[in-house]
Amino acid sequence: MTSATTLFFPVEKDLLQLTENLKNLVGIRHPILYAAAEHLFSAGGKRIRPAIVLLVSRATLPPNQDITPHHRRLAEITEMIHTASLVHDDVVDEANTRRGVPTVHSSFGNRIAVLAGDFLFAKSSWYLANLNNLEVVKLLSQVIMDLAEGEIRQGLKRFDTALSIDDYLEKSYYKTASLIANSAKAAALLSGLSASRSENLYLYGRHIGLAFQIVDDILDFTGSSETLGKPAASDLQDGNLTAPILYALEQQPALELLIEREFAQPGDLEQAIALVRSSDGIDRSRHLAAHHRQLAIQSLADLPPSESHTTLIELTDYVLSRLY
Amino acid sequence: MTSATTLFFPVEKDLLQLTENLKNLVGIRHPILYAAAEHLFSAGGKRIRPAIVLLVSRATLPPNQDITPHHRRLAEITEMIHTASLVHDDVVDEANTRRGVPTVHSSFGNRIAVLAGDFLFAKSSWYLANLNNLEVVKLLSQVIMDLAEGEIRQGLKRFDTALSIDDYLEKSYYKTASLIANSAKAAALLSGLSASRSENLYLYGRHIGLAFQIVDDILDFTGSSETLGKPAASDLQDGNLTAPILYALEQQPALELLIEREFAQPGDLEQAIALVRSSDGIDRSRHLAAHHRQLAIQSLADLPPSESHTTLIELTDYVLSRLY
Repeated sequence: MTSATTLFFPVEKDLLQLTENLKNLVGIRHPILYAAAEHLFSAGGKRIRPAIVLLVSRATLPPNQDITPHHRRLAEITEMIHTASLVHDDVVDEANTRRGVPTVHSSFGNRIAVLAGDFLFAKSSWYLANLNNLEVVKLLSQVIMDLAEGEIRQGLKRFDTALSIDDYLEKSYYKTASLIANSAKAAALLSGLSASRSENLYLYGRHIGLAFQIVDDILDFTGSSETLGKPAASDLQDGNLTAPILYALEQQPALELLIEREFAQPGDLEQAIALVRSSDGIDRSRHLAAHHRQLAIQSLADLPPSESHTTLIELTDYVLSRLY
Repeated sequence: MTSATTLFFPVEKDLLQLTENLKNLVGIRHPILYAAAEHLFSAGGKRIRPAIVLLVSRATLPPNQDITPHHRRLAEITEMIHTASLVHDDVVDEANTRRGVPTVHSSFGNRIAVLAGDFLFAKSSWYLANLNNLEVVKLLSQVIMDLAEGEIRQGLKRFDTALSIDDYLEKSYYKTASLIANSAKAAALLSGLSASRSENLYLYGRHIGLAFQIVDDILDFTGSSETLGKPAASDLQDGNLTAPILYALEQQPALELLIEREFAQPGDLEQAIALVRSSDGIDRSRHLAAHHRQLAIQSLADLPPSESHTTLIELTDYVLSRLY
């Protein structure tokens, strides 16, 4: 299995510079936020979102042309928006750890978590405006709205067994794919691609984003607490009904009752986990992820060959390889 | 004393429409946020910020020309940004009431308060991008960053008796005046005024915003708990060192010790309040507010006469009249 770090070879130096810039972002004037930022931007994130922006930037430019400061700034904005939304989600979900690391909210309190998230959102919209490209501002503003919408929907639909796979995909688009799709399109626009060719990069981001989310939701059932950095089946426990659960519901009617009574009786959760694992929900979810991976690859068809282009394709393999 | 409602006569209809739009904003799809929005936008706010945007819009257009949907949208964005920042400030400050009304955070919990604030910030940056004016996007993005910066500074400088009046004015600019100044300038730009003439509206907003904040900080000492909707001298208690306190510190050295030990001993707070009230801090703060009122009026000198122009001047009287 390839690691994300090896995979990102064509943009390795770009990503190192990005990480430094992000850590310095908050500045020494705000010691408490600085500690939070240090914590956030060092917390072992794979930088998949800015890596995609940087790869799309390189793949959409002529081979002899380097990416511009605007492409780099867009990559930073993408990671800042992602981080800001994680910090606020952790407050909303009252999460104590993420990827095994204590959250900002649990280490520094609600106060700093709300402030740090607001600061990152604010700084990213200011950076965004200063890219001087109205279309790019619109794309990324839409992302910020989609993230809020996704978190609200996830909250409203907890333990709701009437949720369909389409509802699930829509929520996953809002929470995960919108940022990847719109920032990939924005990178293509900054390279000077036409609106219609840039739309293909949007589709690449949309489908790899959905595949990524589906794989994450499968790993919640197949991974161990150690590799996940959180208790296994935590989505099920929280009533966040993901693809494996929704498919299992079609096959195992007993699951519905357990979910609707919110695992109120002893042994309910364990029984529900067993029902999901013994259904073909995980297998069908793998097929769903593979389908979106295929659509992501197809969206790259009109790009000229390049190292970055190849990496964008390999990245879709990497997303699915996490399952094996 | 003129009430804000009578004063806003030239934009009375505009403000009614704005209030309806804001209540409908969150939409029926999000029942919990809807309750929060209903609560927020009905909570007896005086709508001073959107009123200034609407008055500047009318005062900067030829007499026969009605304001555009973009002006109206800008007024809505202004109130949304203000409300979003209040909701998050109440989480950060753990405030239970604002203007005597329970806060979103105390009525609906941290979860909804963070979500509602994020949703309003997100929706306002999306509305903003769709005004299709890059300069306006930059001005309002700067405001969102200033609000975050102001809240952080206020937190860092609590109980810091080394704070100067200039630091206080800078913090007040970030927390209060930046929104009024930049949205007034944006309204002028949307009316087609030149950059240099629009800058006068920025100055009007900056100075009336500072006067407004100074008056608020005086009222914390001179108002009763009932009219304030919060305990009297709550700024002092929280270590938020405002103009009356900073002036009092120059005159009453005993105050410094009480503040630096954060009112740790019984009777400390009462003694500190008495020291501020018996100093000339309140009187000097009144002069400071009057000075900024004068600068606000001067900034309007090049506007042609109109009902809205007159109201913008009267509004500076209203701000100071709250003291008597």
